[in-house]
Amino acid sequence: MRALGRDRCLELLASVPVGRVVFSMRALPAIRPVNHLVDGDSVVIRSNLGGALASAATQGGGVVVAYEADVLDPDTHTGWTVVVTGTARLVLDPARQARYERLLHPWVDEEMNCVITIDCDLVTGYVLHDEVPAGTGA
Amino acid sequence: MRALGRDRCLELLASVPVGRVVFSMRALPAIRPVNHLVDGDSVVIRSNLGGALASAATQGGGVVVAYEADVLDPDTHTGWTVVVTGTARLVLDPARQARYERLLHPWVDEEMNCVITIDCDLVTGYVLHDEVPAGTGA
Repeated sequence: MRALGRDRCLELLASVPVGRVVFSMRALPAIRPVNHLVDGDSVVIRSNLGGALASAATQGGGVVVAYEADVLDPDTHTGWTVVVTGTARLVLDPARQARYERLLHPWVDEEMNCVITIDCDLVTGYVLHDEVPAGTGA
Repeated sequence: MRALGRDRCLELLASVPVGRVVFSMRALPAIRPVNHLVDGDSVVIRSNLGGALASAATQGGGVVVAYEADVLDPDTHTGWTVVVTGTARLVLDPARQARYERLLHPWVDEEMNCVITIDCDLVTGYVLHDEVPAGTGA
Protein backbone atom coordinates (compact mmCIF):
# COMPACT_ATOMS: atom_id res chain seq x y z
CA MET A 1 0.00 0.00 0.00
CA ARG A 2 1.14 3.53 -0.74
CA ALA A 3 -0.36 6.65 0.83
CA LEU A 4 -1.73 9.28 -1.55
CA GLY A 5 -1.62 13.06 -1.21
CA ARG A 6 -4.73 15.08 -0.49
CA ASP A 7 -5.14 16.45 -4.03
CA ARG A 8 -4.82 13.04 -5.63
CA CYS A 9 -7.34 11.64 -3.12
CA LEU A 10 -9.93 14.27 -4.02
CA GLU A 11 -9.24 13.77 -7.72
CA LEU A 12 -9.88 10.02 -7.37
CA LEU A 13 -12.99 10.63 -5.27
CA ALA A 14 -14.34 12.97 -7.96
CA SER A 15 -13.63 10.33 -10.63
CA VAL A 16 -16.30 7.93 -9.32
CA PRO A 17 -20.02 8.57 -8.83
CA VAL A 18 -20.67 6.56 -5.63
CA GLY A 19 -19.25 6.12 -2.17
CA ARG A 20 -20.42 5.30 1.33
CA VAL A 21 -21.30 7.67 4.15
CA VAL A 22 -20.46 6.41 7.64
CA PHE A 23 -22.20 7.81 10.70
CA SER A 24 -23.68 6.84 14.05
CA MET A 25 -27.33 5.94 14.34
CA ARG A 26 -28.77 5.07 17.76
CA ALA A 27 -25.18 4.70 19.02
CA LEU A 28 -24.40 2.03 16.38
CA PRO A 29 -22.07 2.37 13.40
CA ALA A 30 -24.09 2.90 10.24
CA ILE A 31 -23.08 2.99 6.58
CA ARG A 32 -25.03 3.74 3.45
CA PRO A 33 -23.98 3.87 -0.22
CA VAL A 34 -24.89 7.12 -1.95
CA ASN A 35 -23.83 9.00 -5.03
CA HIS A 36 -21.78 12.15 -4.63
CA LEU A 37 -20.02 15.04 -6.24
CA VAL A 38 -16.90 16.83 -5.10
CA ASP A 39 -17.25 20.63 -4.95
CA GLY A 40 -14.01 22.28 -3.93
CA ASP A 41 -13.25 21.10 -0.42
CA SER A 42 -16.61 19.44 0.16
CA VAL A 43 -18.26 16.19 -0.75
CA VAL A 44 -21.94 16.71 -1.58
CA ILE A 45 -24.53 13.97 -1.16
CA ARG A 46 -28.32 13.73 -1.22
CA SER A 47 -30.02 11.39 1.15
CA ASN A 48 -32.79 10.93 3.64
CA LEU A 49 -30.18 9.30 5.97
CA GLY A 50 -32.77 8.55 8.61
CA GLY A 51 -33.47 11.15 11.24
CA ALA A 52 -30.12 10.79 12.97
CA LEU A 53 -27.73 12.55 10.65
CA ALA A 54 -30.28 15.03 9.35
CA SER A 55 -31.42 16.26 12.77
CA ALA A 56 -27.85 16.49 14.07
CA ALA A 57 -26.80 18.32 10.93
CA THR A 58 -29.76 20.71 11.20
CA GLN A 59 -28.76 21.88 14.63
CA GLY A 60 -26.14 24.19 13.22
CA GLY A 61 -23.02 22.48 14.50
CA GLY A 62 -23.16 19.53 12.19
CA VAL A 63 -21.97 16.00 12.91
CA VAL A 64 -18.71 14.26 12.04
CA VAL A 65 -18.99 11.52 9.44
CA ALA A 66 -16.64 9.57 7.22
CA TYR A 67 -17.09 9.21 3.48
CA GLU A 68 -15.35 6.44 1.58
CA ALA A 69 -14.97 5.52 -2.06
CA ASP A 70 -12.83 2.86 -3.65
CA VAL A 71 -12.07 1.01 -6.84
CA LEU A 72 -10.80 -2.48 -6.05
CA ASP A 73 -10.17 -5.17 -8.63
CA PRO A 74 -10.82 -8.67 -7.27
CA ASP A 75 -8.70 -10.26 -10.00
CA THR A 76 -5.54 -8.21 -9.74
CA HIS A 77 -5.98 -7.09 -6.09
CA THR A 78 -5.13 -3.57 -7.17
CA GLY A 79 -6.96 -0.31 -6.86
CA TRP A 80 -7.39 2.56 -4.44
CA THR A 81 -9.43 3.72 -1.48
CA VAL A 82 -10.05 7.26 -0.23
CA VAL A 83 -11.60 8.28 3.09
CA VAL A 84 -12.73 11.80 3.94
CA THR A 85 -13.55 12.58 7.58
CA GLY A 86 -15.31 15.82 8.40
CA THR A 87 -18.38 17.67 9.52
CA ALA A 88 -21.63 16.94 7.68
CA ARG A 89 -24.04 19.83 7.39
CA LEU A 90 -27.48 20.20 5.86
CA VAL A 91 -27.53 22.70 3.02
CA LEU A 92 -30.22 25.17 4.04
CA ASP A 93 -29.59 27.99 1.58
CA PRO A 94 -32.27 27.56 -1.13
CA ALA A 95 -30.06 28.67 -4.04
CA ARG A 96 -27.21 26.29 -3.10
CA GLN A 97 -29.70 23.52 -2.45
CA ALA A 98 -31.31 24.02 -5.86
CA ARG A 99 -27.91 24.06 -7.57
CA TYR A 100 -26.85 20.77 -5.96
CA GLU A 101 -30.22 19.20 -6.72
CA ARG A 102 -29.71 20.06 -10.38
CA LEU A 103 -26.20 18.57 -10.39
CA LEU A 104 -26.77 15.45 -8.31
CA HIS A 105 -29.52 12.97 -9.08
CA PRO A 106 -30.16 10.16 -6.58
CA TRP A 107 -30.02 6.65 -7.98
CA VAL A 108 -32.82 5.34 -5.85
CA ASP A 109 -36.50 6.18 -5.91
CA GLU A 110 -36.68 7.01 -2.21
CA GLU A 111 -37.55 10.51 -1.14
CA MET A 112 -34.28 12.45 -0.84
CA ASN A 113 -35.15 15.35 1.37
CA CYS A 114 -31.65 16.48 2.31
CA VAL A 115 -28.67 17.93 0.53
CA ILE A 116 -25.65 17.41 2.78
CA THR A 117 -22.11 18.71 2.47
CA ILE A 118 -19.19 16.97 4.15
CA ASP A 119 -16.14 19.13 4.86
CA CYS A 120 -12.94 17.44 3.72
CA ASP A 121 -11.18 18.07 7.05
CA LEU A 122 -9.12 14.90 7.03
CA VAL A 123 -8.38 13.17 3.73
CA THR A 124 -6.51 9.87 3.50
CA GLY A 125 -6.07 7.48 0.63
CA TYR A 126 -4.05 4.49 -0.44
CA VAL A 127 -3.12 2.71 -3.61
CA LEU A 128 -2.97 -1.06 -3.33
CA HIS A 129 0.34 -2.40 -4.67
CA ASP A 130 3.13 0.06 -5.23
CA GLU A 131 3.89 -1.04 -8.74
CA VAL A 132 0.46 0.01 -10.00
CA PRO A 133 -0.06 3.65 -11.03
CA ALA A 134 -2.66 5.44 -8.90
CA GLY A 135 -6.20 5.23 -10.20
CA THR A 136 -5.84 2.11 -12.28
CA GLY A 137 -6.93 -1.30 -11.19
CA ALA A 138 -10.50 -1.45 -12.38
CA MET B 1 -35.31 0.01 -3.41
CA ARG B 2 -36.52 -3.34 -2.18
CA ALA B 3 -35.47 -4.88 1.16
CA LEU B 4 -33.85 -8.31 1.02
CA GLY B 5 -34.23 -11.17 3.48
CA ARG B 6 -31.41 -12.21 5.80
CA ASP B 7 -30.48 -15.38 3.85
CA ARG B 8 -30.33 -13.55 0.54
CA CYS B 9 -28.21 -10.82 2.13
CA LEU B 10 -25.65 -13.33 3.42
CA GLU B 11 -25.65 -15.12 0.06
CA LEU B 12 -24.88 -11.83 -1.74
CA LEU B 13 -22.22 -10.93 0.84
CA ALA B 14 -20.56 -14.31 0.30
CA SER B 15 -20.63 -13.79 -3.47
CA VAL B 16 -18.11 -10.92 -3.38
CA PRO B 17 -14.58 -10.92 -1.95
CA VAL B 18 -14.39 -7.40 -0.48
CA GLY B 19 -16.35 -5.11 1.77
CA ARG B 20 -15.76 -2.35 4.28
CA VAL B 21 -15.53 -2.56 8.03
CA VAL B 22 -16.88 0.45 9.93
CA PHE B 23 -15.80 1.19 13.48
CA SER B 24 -14.87 4.01 15.83
CA MET B 25 -11.29 5.12 16.18
CA ARG B 26 -10.43 7.87 18.64
CA ALA B 27 -14.15 8.72 18.79
CA LEU B 28 -14.30 9.31 15.01
CA PRO B 29 -16.09 7.17 12.43
CA ALA B 30 -13.58 5.00 10.58
CA ILE B 31 -13.95 2.75 7.55
CA ARG B 32 -11.52 0.43 5.84
CA PRO B 33 -11.91 -1.88 2.83
CA VAL B 34 -10.89 -5.49 3.50
CA ASN B 35 -11.50 -8.86 1.96
CA HIS B 36 -13.77 -11.28 3.77
CA LEU B 37 -15.38 -14.67 3.86
CA VAL B 38 -18.75 -15.64 5.28
CA ASP B 39 -18.66 -18.61 7.67
CA GLY B 40 -22.13 -19.54 8.87
CA ASP B 41 -23.42 -16.58 10.84
CA SER B 42 -20.11 -14.72 10.93
CA VAL B 43 -18.15 -12.51 8.60
CA VAL B 44 -14.42 -13.21 8.89
CA ILE B 45 -11.79 -10.59 8.06
CA ARG B 46 -8.05 -10.22 8.53
CA SER B 47 -6.65 -6.85 9.35
CA ASN B 48 -4.35 -4.85 11.52
CA LEU B 49 -7.20 -2.32 11.93
CA GLY B 50 -5.07 -0.05 14.04
CA GLY B 51 -4.98 -0.56 17.77
CA ALA B 52 -8.56 0.54 18.35
CA LEU B 53 -10.61 -2.36 17.12
CA ALA B 54 -8.02 -4.99 18.00
CA SER B 55 -7.57 -3.94 21.62
CA ALA B 56 -11.32 -3.58 22.17
CA ALA B 57 -11.91 -6.96 20.59
CA THR B 58 -9.17 -8.54 22.71
CA GLN B 59 -10.83 -7.54 25.93
CA GLY B 60 -13.30 -10.39 25.71
CA GLY B 61 -16.48 -8.45 25.20
CA GLY B 62 -15.77 -7.41 21.65
CA VAL B 63 -16.86 -4.19 19.97
CA VAL B 64 -19.82 -3.47 17.72
CA VAL B 65 -18.94 -2.74 14.09
CA ALA B 66 -20.75 -2.58 10.78
CA TYR B 67 -19.64 -4.44 7.67
CA GLU B 68 -20.86 -3.41 4.24
CA ALA B 69 -20.54 -4.82 0.75
CA ASP B 70 -22.22 -3.71 -2.43
CA VAL B 71 -22.30 -4.11 -6.18
CA LEU B 72 -23.48 -0.89 -7.81
CA ASP B 73 -23.51 -0.26 -11.53
CA PRO B 74 -22.89 3.41 -12.38
CA ASP B 75 -24.40 3.01 -15.84
CA THR B 76 -27.69 1.32 -14.99
CA HIS B 77 -27.96 2.56 -11.37
CA THR B 78 -28.81 -0.97 -10.32
CA GLY B 79 -27.23 -3.33 -7.84
CA TRP B 80 -27.41 -4.21 -4.18
CA THR B 81 -25.99 -3.32 -0.79
CA VAL B 82 -25.80 -5.43 2.35
CA VAL B 83 -24.90 -4.23 5.87
CA VAL B 84 -24.14 -6.53 8.80
CA THR B 85 -24.02 -4.99 12.28
CA GLY B 86 -22.63 -7.05 15.13
CA THR B 87 -19.90 -7.71 17.63
CA ALA B 88 -16.35 -8.01 16.30
CA ARG B 89 -14.08 -10.38 18.18
CA LEU B 90 -10.46 -11.37 17.78
CA VAL B 91 -10.06 -15.07 17.00
CA LEU B 92 -7.72 -16.31 19.73
CA ASP B 93 -8.09 -20.08 19.32
CA PRO B 94 -4.94 -21.16 17.38
CA ALA B 95 -6.70 -23.87 15.33
CA ARG B 96 -9.51 -21.55 14.17
CA GLN B 97 -7.01 -18.80 13.54
CA ALA B 98 -4.87 -21.09 11.38
CA ARG B 99 -7.91 -22.32 9.45
CA TYR B 100 -9.05 -18.79 8.63
CA GLU B 101 -5.50 -17.76 7.71
CA ARG B 102 -5.43 -20.61 5.19
CA LEU B 103 -8.80 -19.61 3.72
CA LEU B 104 -8.41 -15.84 3.66
CA HIS B 105 -5.43 -14.12 2.08
CA PRO B 106 -5.10 -10.34 2.54
CA TRP B 107 -4.79 -8.33 -0.65
CA VAL B 108 -2.33 -5.86 0.76
CA ASP B 109 1.24 -6.37 1.84
CA GLU B 110 0.74 -4.87 5.29
CA GLU B 111 1.21 -7.04 8.34
CA MET B 112 -2.17 -8.61 9.13
CA ASN B 113 -1.85 -9.66 12.73
CA CYS B 114 -5.52 -10.19 13.52
CA VAL B 115 -8.24 -12.57 12.44
CA ILE B 116 -11.56 -11.02 13.39
CA THR B 117 -15.07 -12.46 13.30
CA ILE B 118 -18.13 -10.24 13.11
CA ASP B 119 -21.38 -11.74 14.38
CA CYS B 120 -24.22 -11.22 11.94
CA ASP B 121 -26.58 -9.90 14.64
CA LEU B 122 -28.42 -7.46 12.41
CA VAL B 123 -28.45 -8.01 8.65
CA THR B 124 -30.05 -5.59 6.22
CA GLY B 125 -29.85 -5.34 2.47
CA TYR B 126 -31.49 -3.65 -0.47
CA VAL B 127 -31.75 -4.09 -4.19
CA LEU B 128 -31.74 -0.87 -6.17
CA HIS B 129 -34.68 -0.71 -8.57
CA ASP B 130 -37.48 -3.19 -8.04
CA GLU B 131 -37.59 -4.38 -11.60
CA VAL B 132 -34.05 -5.79 -11.40
CA PRO B 133 -33.55 -9.32 -10.01
CA ALA B 134 -31.44 -9.40 -6.83
CA GLY B 135 -27.75 -9.83 -7.40
CA THR B 136 -27.56 -8.48 -10.91
CA GLY B 137 -26.42 -5.04 -11.83
CA ALA B 138 -22.67 -5.50 -12.28
